[in-house]
Amino acid sequence: MRITLIAALMLSSGFAHADEGQWQPYQMPSIADKLTERGIDIPATQLANLGQYPMNAVVSLGYCTASFVSPQGLVVTNHHCAYRGIQYNSKKEHNYLADGFLAKSMSEEPSAGPSERLYITESVTDVTAKITANLPDEPLQRYEQIQANSKALIKQCETDDYYRCSVTSYHHGLEYFLIKQLIIRDVRLVYAPPESVGGYGGDIDNYEYPRHSGDFTFLRAYVGKDGKPAVYSPDNVPFEPKSYLKINANGVKAGDGVFVAGYPGATSRYNLTSELKFASDWLYPTYAKRYQLQIDTINKMGEFNHDIAIKYAGTLASMANRMKKLNGLLDGFKATDIVGIKQSREQNFLTWLTQQEPAKAKIITELERLLAEQQKQTQTNYYFENAQSSTLLATAKKLYRLAQEKQKPDAERESGYQQRDMKMFRAGLKRIDSSFDVEVDKTLWLQDLNAYIGQPLKVEVFDNALNNATDHQDFVAKVDGIYALTELTNPEVRLAWMDKSVAEFESSSDPFIRLAVDVHDTNMALEKADKELAGKLSKVKPLYMEAIIDYYKANNWPVYADANRTLRITYGMVDGYQSKDALYKQPFTRLEGITAKHTGEEPFNAPEKLLKAIKAKDYGKHEISSVYNDPRSWFCKLTSCVEPKNDFNSVPVNFLSSVDTTGGNSGSPVFNGQGELVGLNFDSTYEAITKDWFFNPTITRAVHVDIRYILWMMDKVDHADNLIKELDLVTNESR
Amino acid sequence: MRITLIAALMLSSGFAHADEGQWQPYQMPSIADKLTERGIDIPATQLANLGQYPMNAVVSLGYCTASFVSPQGLVVTNHHCAYRGIQYNSKKEHNYLADGFLAKSMSEEPSAGPSERLYITESVTDVTAKITANLPDEPLQRYEQIQANSKALIKQCETDDYYRCSVTSYHHGLEYFLIKQLIIRDVRLVYAPPESVGGYGGDIDNYEYPRHSGDFTFLRAYVGKDGKPAVYSPDNVPFEPKSYLKINANGVKAGDGVFVAGYPGATSRYNLTSELKFASDWLYPTYAKRYQLQIDTINKMGEFNHDIAIKYAGTLASMANRMKKLNGLLDGFKATDIVGIKQSREQNFLTWLTQQEPAKAKIITELERLLAEQQKQTQTNYYFENAQSSTLLATAKKLYRLAQEKQKPDAERESGYQQRDMKMFRAGLKRIDSSFDVEVDKTLWLQDLNAYIGQPLKVEVFDNALNNATDHQDFVAKVDGIYALTELTNPEVRLAWMDKSVAEFESSSDPFIRLAVDVHDTNMALEKADKELAGKLSKVKPLYMEAIIDYYKANNWPVYADANRTLRITYGMVDGYQSKDALYKQPFTRLEGITAKHTGEEPFNAPEKLLKAIKAKDYGKHEISSVYNDPRSWFCKLTSCVEPKNDFNSVPVNFLSSVDTTGGNSGSPVFNGQGELVGLNFDSTYEAITKDWFFNPTITRAVHVDIRYILWMMDKVDHADNLIKELDLVTNESR
Repeated sequence: MRITLIAALMLSSGFAHADEGQWQPYQMPSIADKLTERGIDIPATQLANLGQYPMNAVVSLGYCTASFVSPQGLVVTNHHCAYRGIQYNSKKEHNYLADGFLAKSMSEEPSAGPSERLYITESVTDVTAKITANLPDEPLQRYEQIQANSKALIKQCETDDYYRCSVTSYHHGLEYFLIKQLIIRDVRLVYAPPESVGGYGGDIDNYEYPRHSGDFTFLRAYVGKDGKPAVYSPDNVPFEPKSYLKINANGVKAGDGVFVAGYPGATSRYNLTSELKFASDWLYPTYAKRYQLQIDTINKMGEFNHDIAIKYAGTLASMANRMKKLNGLLDGFKATDIVGIKQSREQNFLTWLTQQEPAKAKIITELERLLAEQQKQTQTNYYFENAQSSTLLATAKKLYRLAQEKQKPDAERESGYQQRDMKMFRAGLKRIDSSFDVEVDKTLWLQDLNAYIGQPLKVEVFDNALNNATDHQDFVAKVDGIYALTELTNPEVRLAWMDKSVAEFESSSDPFIRLAVDVHDTNMALEKADKELAGKLSKVKPLYMEAIIDYYKANNWPVYADANRTLRITYGMVDGYQSKDALYKQPFTRLEGITAKHTGEEPFNAPEKLLKAIKAKDYGKHEISSVYNDPRSWFCKLTSCVEPKNDFNSVPVNFLSSVDTTGGNSGSPVFNGQGELVGLNFDSTYEAITKDWFFNPTITRAVHVDIRYILWMMDKVDHADNLIKELDLVTNESR
Repeated sequence: MRITLIAALMLSSGFAHADEGQWQPYQMPSIADKLTERGIDIPATQLANLGQYPMNAVVSLGYCTASFVSPQGLVVTNHHCAYRGIQYNSKKEHNYLADGFLAKSMSEEPSAGPSERLYITESVTDVTAKITANLPDEPLQRYEQIQANSKALIKQCETDDYYRCSVTSYHHGLEYFLIKQLIIRDVRLVYAPPESVGGYGGDIDNYEYPRHSGDFTFLRAYVGKDGKPAVYSPDNVPFEPKSYLKINANGVKAGDGVFVAGYPGATSRYNLTSELKFASDWLYPTYAKRYQLQIDTINKMGEFNHDIAIKYAGTLASMANRMKKLNGLLDGFKATDIVGIKQSREQNFLTWLTQQEPAKAKIITELERLLAEQQKQTQTNYYFENAQSSTLLATAKKLYRLAQEKQKPDAERESGYQQRDMKMFRAGLKRIDSSFDVEVDKTLWLQDLNAYIGQPLKVEVFDNALNNATDHQDFVAKVDGIYALTELTNPEVRLAWMDKSVAEFESSSDPFIRLAVDVHDTNMALEKADKELAGKLSKVKPLYMEAIIDYYKANNWPVYADANRTLRITYGMVDGYQSKDALYKQPFTRLEGITAKHTGEEPFNAPEKLLKAIKAKDYGKHEISSVYNDPRSWFCKLTSCVEPKNDFNSVPVNFLSSVDTTGGNSGSPVFNGQGELVGLNFDSTYEAITKDWFFNPTITRAVHVDIRYILWMMDKVDHADNLIKELDLVTNESR
């Protein structure tokens, strides 16, 4: 019923692939002609070289992307990516979140916190043969062998403390790459606008457009005096990156080709329709229901307790973000019949496969069988896993697991429990208190326990451990008792448990430790089942991927791996889009849009100095008379309307492009065709949220902060002259 | 603070007047060059002639506009304009509001109700000299003399029952015109789509765009066998209009010139800034508060009582409409500093006037003094007038007034109480019950009484009549008693009072009649004060209008009278608009937009047959491949985007143009440059609501039903083949 015109068009004319693709840098030469078509003139071979400009200036924050913009290690990323570092430095006497922060010299740059890192990818090596050679057939053994092979390669690669190595699967196990990254351990805060600029519009504008967000922050990488990565020390010196990005102060205009480099998290573009159906019909609605309850609960508790409000601000923000994404997915599936599109696509593939290689067609039958098993497993374990959601129980479980893993040689331990992981493990245990409140934790846990008793799938050992409580009141009493007796709320106690033996756990009287011990075997059995299934899938999925890649190649469609938190490049065009019937969203927003949205109430509380500068039209050299090819201007030129007065005459704030991004691409540099920085990626539009499953080129747009807004803020509002001097600014003329 | 860019632009560059103007037909030759510039080729002299095509095909419904479209008196107007007639014919067994109605032959066309009328304006004569010659100076006498002069002209004009004449003031008393209209008294229902098509989107979409409303209905004019107007009789025959509109099945495209003829209600474009301030600061917020309370109350009472819901459906719809208009006005004043714009404009005028004719400058001082007096009077009387809001009290007052007026010779009676008004008076008394419920009336009246006692301005005679009740409980008891005792709820009793004497009223024991008698003198005194003030203003306002018209002419700005429910022509262009920063609303919506909005829940419950026809893409000859110059298409032609696939490929549903309309223009024919029908006006956009005070050409757009949607509905959905045959369809080729 609700198939839109767009979807209908796509169904009828095959499927478009324009600008789709999160490319591994080495693939760039294979799409060189497409880059040229888009006006991207920087050689594709140059983009493929991680040791060369601009790719060696692109860095990961672990969860976001950033880039070097000065010879002295100055880094630019999104405000929301640097949020933790700004929060870390915000005190009662100077609230940098509320007021922003600008270091007038390097000596004023504070540490962004002990757990902030920058990762510079130095090499990506195909290790498929080494991982997949001679794998055993038995599923669990097969799974374990892949892990062992990976760990061996990582150990070989991590020759010193300066590097982090990882082995990542591409195309669902068809290929494996070894990634080597330099780790910068001293990251400092340099310049952040107030949250009312960096996060202007808040949750309301999140995933929406037109957008007016100054979502940028500058950090700086520091190293030891010897130039090697080191933890924070006042004696450290700025890191000198191999290269840093040129910034084009003229920005881009509509129709210009752009590309984005970064670390996209996860997509499911090659997944089967049955997987999409499971997600859209069960997984997402089930998650959405639980999240909404949790959000409402925390909000309500925060209303009466300021301490809770502060501690859970970050949690709530990320839950609100996930909730909006879930709603966007569910709305997107309603608006466009993606299941229908994928089904017809899959049918064509199966027909082709049966003709080409009849023997291979049965792979799909086997894969569907395993996926059905996986979905059933997910549904079966869902309520039991949630029933263990208490933060302190999770902590107890991790600690007991550590004691168990420590009984094995380091190389055989589960990933996350090896020697190389212990720094992060310790930091994680310390960090808990900053976003934890006993009453909230208890309430959320009780909600999950209620959901657990309300469904038929029971786990006896867990039920026994909780005295076979059968109603809410029983649980309240039991849970109150557990929190009253536990000592895990004390960080010292938590850290002490890191060094204790299995026997000490088993004889502990701490109720959370006891519960963790009680459910350990059950959880291990579930994990083993998961691994077995993963082992089975590791045989079938690569075969499926091989077949579908053949099919794509036969059709001349782009082939790139689903996102997996590794370095990718995506290209596209600065462009608006048709949001709804008769509603066209133009590619650039302007300063005056900030004023129009301003209400004085969060999240539309633009700072006075910003509003003043906008009102004064003090655009300086950042003013643009017509950045953009306003559809209306064209229209008027061709029909001789009398009011073609739609010149831009402002500073562009945010802009849209058709590049292919997802979570993890936040903070990614947006480059013009010459490889000069013209913006920062920070979001995508609501209509585009379903792109993780299906890339619809007509409505998929990424949202970027325009570099001209950043420069104008630095120049006219915050007077960051020291930083402007540090940048390598070019213009279209000077180039 | 919240002056938008647009407003700022307008302040800095004077003020634009493009397409502004609700022109009297006789003025058309004076703007002939502007019409030509817009591509309107029909001669301006032809438009000035009320006896010629197309103006003699444009008719008034009293509150809306319509037009003849066949030689057999077929009339087309908006669904919402014909609502009363459709409701009148809706019964339990055939609900035409819900299901729509189509007469397959003339014999199946039912009467639209005894009070439906069509008015055909045959002549408009300047009678300024006759009205304003030798007026006395004393304000009340002056006022009365103007009324007497008007009545004399009307009496002379209304030689028989077939015509209605009226004298209307233009430019606030600077000019007067005598208008002679033929009255069609037998109006029948021919074809109406279901409300789910005619009012698709309901209150939610009202005043909004993108819009997808099939807001059209066909009626037919009938006359006696002698060709003269007559009340309904089965023997009546279809009226043969002097001409009827050609319909252009090709419609229009973006950029095309269009014009609209109709009966706009009221605008305040020449009012002083002080009047705007009073409206925006006191009048509108005060009204909005009362309306919202009433809407909430009726909605709540309707929830528990289906009878109330039905009876008050029409009242609620019109209250919701007024409420949205009020909110639009208040939001519009926040978004654009219209007070500031008007103030600067007024200052320039005053400077000019002082230079040109220093003596005249003091007119403004005198006018401001009178306006301040008027505003004070409005505020003073507001709560007392509302305290008499009971429908039955209002009825009793009208009946008593009739008894009073009948003591005078007919010519001297107040307008509304003359012999010529008695048919309507009687019909009004009969109609009450269809939209009246004692409990609702009581509750709303009590709310107004509460507001009255909550403020200091008291009227002793009223307080005494209500036993000097001072709190809510007193009122409840008193009011319950009044409703229990009155007989005015009986329509026979109401009608009987029409023939009773003043003495009979004064000795009545009906509590509402008694209350009406008690407050009569006070109300008459207030009315006298109003008339005195009107008399004073009738001297000063024409002088002010004379001066400001001189100023406009000196600046070469268009001069046209504020809307006053008389026949006007406005021209403009098919055009989208910039709704918000980066948000552009395109001029045409398409069928697929209906499906996208469909939820199955009112007001987005499109009928199954419509959705089916859309899904089938059964557009037939109504399909348009590119009605419109999509901004994106232009853009792509110029920048070589790869996805210029934005062809229309649908049937256009609604479209926007820059014509200058207001309430009363509903149902107005929209003409192409050749004077062929291409649509029906039915609404304007939310951003444009403030146009009654200030016409902002960049955001003011009227919303029209596209004739192609009407023809497609008739052809493909409702199979109204009999009607299609009756129409005079032309195409761009056939012409």
